[in-house]
Amino acid sequence: MSENKLPSWNETSTKKSITDFVDKITKEGSPDFIPEEDRIAVFDNDGTLWTEQPFQIQIIYCLDRIKELGEKDPELVKSQPLKAFYEQDWKTVSEMTKKDIYEFVVTVLDGKTPDDFKKLVVNWFDKAVHPQFKQSYYKCYYQPQIELLRYLEDNGFKNFIVSGGGIDFMKAVCTNIYGIPDHRIIGSSFKTKVEYNGNIPVLVRLPELNSFNDKDEKVNNIHLHIGKKPVFAFGNSDGDLAMIRYTLSKDNGIAFILHHDDDGREVAYDREFKLSPLIEGLEVAVKEGINIVSMKNDWKRVFEDFKN
Amino acid sequence: MSENKLPSWNETSTKKSITDFVDKITKEGSPDFIPEEDRIAVFDNDGTLWTEQPFQIQIIYCLDRIKELGEKDPELVKSQPLKAFYEQDWKTVSEMTKKDIYEFVVTVLDGKTPDDFKKLVVNWFDKAVHPQFKQSYYKCYYQPQIELLRYLEDNGFKNFIVSGGGIDFMKAVCTNIYGIPDHRIIGSSFKTKVEYNGNIPVLVRLPELNSFNDKDEKVNNIHLHIGKKPVFAFGNSDGDLAMIRYTLSKDNGIAFILHHDDDGREVAYDREFKLSPLIEGLEVAVKEGINIVSMKNDWKRVFEDFKN
Repeated sequence: MSENKLPSWNETSTKKSITDFVDKITKEGSPDFIPEEDRIAVFDNDGTLWTEQPFQIQIIYCLDRIKELGEKDPELVKSQPLKAFYEQDWKTVSEMTKKDIYEFVVTVLDGKTPDDFKKLVVNWFDKAVHPQFKQSYYKCYYQPQIELLRYLEDNGFKNFIVSGGGIDFMKAVCTNIYGIPDHRIIGSSFKTKVEYNGNIPVLVRLPELNSFNDKDEKVNNIHLHIGKKPVFAFGNSDGDLAMIRYTLSKDNGIAFILHHDDDGREVAYDREFKLSPLIEGLEVAVKEGINIVSMKNDWKRVFEDFKN
Repeated sequence: MSENKLPSWNETSTKKSITDFVDKITKEGSPDFIPEEDRIAVFDNDGTLWTEQPFQIQIIYCLDRIKELGEKDPELVKSQPLKAFYEQDWKTVSEMTKKDIYEFVVTVLDGKTPDDFKKLVVNWFDKAVHPQFKQSYYKCYYQPQIELLRYLEDNGFKNFIVSGGGIDFMKAVCTNIYGIPDHRIIGSSFKTKVEYNGNIPVLVRLPELNSFNDKDEKVNNIHLHIGKKPVFAFGNSDGDLAMIRYTLSKDNGIAFILHHDDDGREVAYDREFKLSPLIEGLEVAVKEGINIVSMKNDWKRVFEDFKN
């Protein structure tokens, strides 16, 4: 029964903690019952729902995009940080912070309108292949997490993505990948403005960050976009701790951190992934009641179609 | 049949334009078909879903709240603009802009946390009575619009509120009034920050506007929160024109402006309501294909339980 629910999850205590929680809070009349309108689940994306190795997928997109643009306009990529992107100098890129990359690279170059940008992203996804897993990025999601999203939905939850990734980047592809509608995807955003073509408003992206959705800002944006405290949170890095603690501050809240400890089927890493490390989360997990999910032990498989 | 759908709407060409639109875009295989995921409807709130006379309900809340605070702390209300609020000097208040009121009044005084603020708002709604209609503000919604929200939902639409009103103010009460979940309510917002009580994050409201959701900013926020162009828009003032035009720039988009022309059952006004006038909307409606809804002619009744 339990196996049918989450077939790619092993029968471990982690899986049991998920199903026990759902059983408990959906049981009408029980003191732990949570009404449907409050069943809000928040998921980080990079490293939680899809792979973030060797870089977050959006950064790999930027590397490819800047290579393309630099070939047309060598002036553009003469100095840092764009030079490192153009030369696919992964070492230099990996020493930048995620925020630097957003501010200095992503914001400068994307399509003029959100529709232009969406086309660029979709075109890239339609062709690009992951360097290690040799599969489309469309396939780089974690199959156990897709099952978890559906399982929560079947139990009356509304799932939201709350990610440091670009909100427009995610909306271009994530709705189809995860079955989560655009309006439930929250991410880092740029400012926009409206220009007029006669009476027709045209929304234009500006090269200025509106919100860098990491750490405490995830809590601010959960309040702005959702307006309720979640009862279920899933992340994989210290950037998710604020939203995890916010969730745990709610009666009956439960939270999970995915630990990438599986070098065979994916990549084993935590503190050494400078762009988005997991250090404090592992240290405080037991004390604060955060469930650590071991990719190696808790997941029967990692990707859907991949031999693993 | 058509009457059963929207019983509080008269059998006019306005009602027919709504039902024809819905019939057309839900007909599979037709060239006008719009898939469910794109059936996004946006509604202004003040003057569109509930009454905004003599002031927007949130402003009346502020008048009452500042009176209460000024009685405890006379220093607070010695100078403008708070003095006018304290003295319930409606003439002076009506000469302010909505944005002034947000910036100088609302942001200074509300509860420390969103939960504190929500309690203040709910407590006020539980007691306050509308000065003209002599009924609870909970009852000051327009019954024909509730039927329209349900009718659209029944036809696969997702309804969103996109209002100049405060997002937290609306979330405190509007979900119950309109049956629209918190995460589909978009409004003016304040900045927030996270403070820590040990490891527990506490979200705190800051006296600084994050977004004043009027005119073009409604389009920016539709993109940020929804990420899709709506196909159905309903407003009542020139502050809604940007989102109406944005909606009409979409294939098959349709838009409505409620004209308050009913002095018997509500209040007849347009250009003279300085806080939120309707001038340009009436001038351009025919040319731009915006449907003008006459409260007097198109609505069989205005409020649900009110003798009208």
